[in-house]
Amino acid sequence: MQALDLIGKVLLNEGDTMAGQFPTYLGALDSWRPRRPHFRNMNLQTNDLDFVAAMTDAKFAYTVPNFSNPTGRLVPEQTRRELVAAARQTGAWLVEDDPYGGLSYDGPIPPSALEISAEDEPDDGRPYGGPVIYLGTLSKMVAPGLRVGWVIAAPEMIAALTTAKQGSDLCTSGLTQRMTCKIFEAGLIESMNPVMLRLYGGRRDALLAAMDRHLADFFDWQFPEGGMFVWASAKDERLNTDALFKVGLEELVCVTPSSVFDSQEEFRRGIRLNFTINDADRLEEAVIRLARATRRLLATLG
Amino acid sequence: MQALDLIGKVLLNEGDTMAGQFPTYLGALDSWRPRRPHFRNMNLQTNDLDFVAAMTDAKFAYTVPNFSNPTGRLVPEQTRRELVAAARQTGAWLVEDDPYGGLSYDGPIPPSALEISAEDEPDDGRPYGGPVIYLGTLSKMVAPGLRVGWVIAAPEMIAALTTAKQGSDLCTSGLTQRMTCKIFEAGLIESMNPVMLRLYGGRRDALLAAMDRHLADFFDWQFPEGGMFVWASAKDERLNTDALFKVGLEELVCVTPSSVFDSQEEFRRGIRLNFTINDADRLEEAVIRLARATRRLLATLG
Repeated sequence: MQALDLIGKVLLNEGDTMAGQFPTYLGALDSWRPRRPHFRNMNLQTNDLDFVAAMTDAKFAYTVPNFSNPTGRLVPEQTRRELVAAARQTGAWLVEDDPYGGLSYDGPIPPSALEISAEDEPDDGRPYGGPVIYLGTLSKMVAPGLRVGWVIAAPEMIAALTTAKQGSDLCTSGLTQRMTCKIFEAGLIESMNPVMLRLYGGRRDALLAAMDRHLADFFDWQFPEGGMFVWASAKDERLNTDALFKVGLEELVCVTPSSVFDSQEEFRRGIRLNFTINDADRLEEAVIRLARATRRLLATLG
Repeated sequence: MQALDLIGKVLLNEGDTMAGQFPTYLGALDSWRPRRPHFRNMNLQTNDLDFVAAMTDAKFAYTVPNFSNPTGRLVPEQTRRELVAAARQTGAWLVEDDPYGGLSYDGPIPPSALEISAEDEPDDGRPYGGPVIYLGTLSKMVAPGLRVGWVIAAPEMIAALTTAKQGSDLCTSGLTQRMTCKIFEAGLIESMNPVMLRLYGGRRDALLAAMDRHLADFFDWQFPEGGMFVWASAKDERLNTDALFKVGLEELVCVTPSSVFDSQEEFRRGIRLNFTINDADRLEEAVIRLARATRRLLATLG
C-alpha cells in the first residue's frame, strides 16, 4: 500500500494523467487523490478498450490483474500482453499490484505482466529494465499487521522509490523486515497456502450459495476464481448502493458500495462482499440481512 | 519522522511558507522539499529574533527545543514561551519535535512547548486544543528499528494526520505498536535511561576532551548538555565543510557538513559530530583523523 503512495510521489504532479483499472482499489485512489491527478478509467472487461489510447500521456497505468479488489476478476493473459505492449509503446509505467495472486482457488493463473514483459528483455545478465512496477505484499498471504511489501522494477524506479521512502518514513521497521526474511526462508507462505485456500475457497462457495438462495432476484454477479470478494451489480438500476450501504448498517450488515471504487465517484449500482473473514453461518446470516435491507430500500422506490 | 511527512501532507501546498529552527534536521527538510514550500529560517540563538514576524503567514514553525539535531542546543524556557505566544498570535502551528528530550546528561530540562501551551488551556475536561503538535519517538530511547513514534495535538490535527496516514501506508505495523505498549507498561524507558545517560554522557565527555586536544586550533564549539551531537564551526571562514567532508572520507572519518542542515544549502562552516555510536578510543582516533583532514584542507588554501 505504501508503494502506491511512493509511486505517486515519484511520478505524479498536479494535473498529470494516470490510467486505472476500473473499478479501482479504494486505497490506491486515497493514496493518489491528494496529488490531484487526472484519472482515466480503464474497464478491462470491455472488448473494445484501446490500451494505447488509454495509456497515452499517462504517467502510469494501475492494474490488479489477479482477483482485483473489488471485482475478484482474473485478467486474461491476452489482456496482460496488450497492457505490456501498450506500456512499451506509450512509455507509461505499468503498475501491477498483486496482493491476491496467491489466493487462486481453482487452479493456476496466467503469467504476471512482470513475467510477460521480462520475456522481451535482453538476456545480458543486467537487472530487469522493463516498464512493469510489480508490487508484492505479505498482507494477504501471512498477516496484514506486518505491513511489509516489496517492489520489483527497473533500477532507476527502485532508486527513485527508495529516495521517496527515505523522505517519507526513513525506512520500514528492521524487526518486521527480518521477520519477513525468516518467513521466506522457512517457507511459511508455501506451507500456509493450502490451508488458506481450503478455508477461503470454502467460504467463497458458502457465500455464493447463500447469495443464490437470497439475493438472486436483486443482483447479478460473477463467480470469483480467487481473491477475497464477490462483486455484485443491482438488477434494478434505481437501486443506489450508497443508500443500500446505510440501510444495511441498520440491519447490522456491512457491504462496500461501488462509488468508493470509482475515481469519478459515480458508479452506484455495485457492492463488494468479502467472504474471507466470516464463517459459512455468519455469511448466510449476513446475506439474509442484506436481502432484507435490499427489499426495504426497493420498497421505498415504489 | 513519518509525522513530519504527514504534517507536510496536511498543511503544505506548493509555495506555502513554513518557518524552521536553523540549522534544521536534515530528515525534516527531506520530508518537506518535495512539496516545494518557502522555507523561512529561524535562528533561535540570536537575541533579536522576531518570533511573530517569523511565523506570520507560515503554516507551521518547526522546532527541536531539546538538544536539536544538529546543534545539540537546549532552547531556554523563555524562548519556548515566546514561540508558543507567537504561534497563538499568528495562528501558525508549532511543531515540537522531541526525539532527544530523554538524553539530558546534566540535569532537568525546561517544560516542553506542549506543557507551556497547555497552561493556557481551559480546565474543562476537553482534550488539548492548543497550537503545539508534539512529536515523540522510541527511536532514541529504545530502538530506532521499531519505527514507532506518536503525535500529541489538537483533535482536528490528529484527525487530519490519521486520514493522511491512512492514504500513505494504511497504518503502522500492529506488531510494533503492541511492542511499544508493552515497552511503556514494563517501564523499559525508565529502566534503560540511566544506563544510556551514563554511556552516552561518558562518550560526550570523551569526544569533547579529544576535540580540546586536537581540534581547538581549527574549530569553536559549545558544550552540549544532551542529545547525540557536538556542533562545531570553523574558525577560518575559508574552510568549506563540504570540502572537509570529502577529505575526511579519504582519511576514513565521516562528519556531517552543515550545508545539509540549511534549507538554503548555504551554510558551509559547520560540522556535526556524533558521540553516541563509538567508544572513547574510536572517538579519539576519529578526532585525530579529522584534525589531519582539516590541516590538509587548510594547506590547500595557502
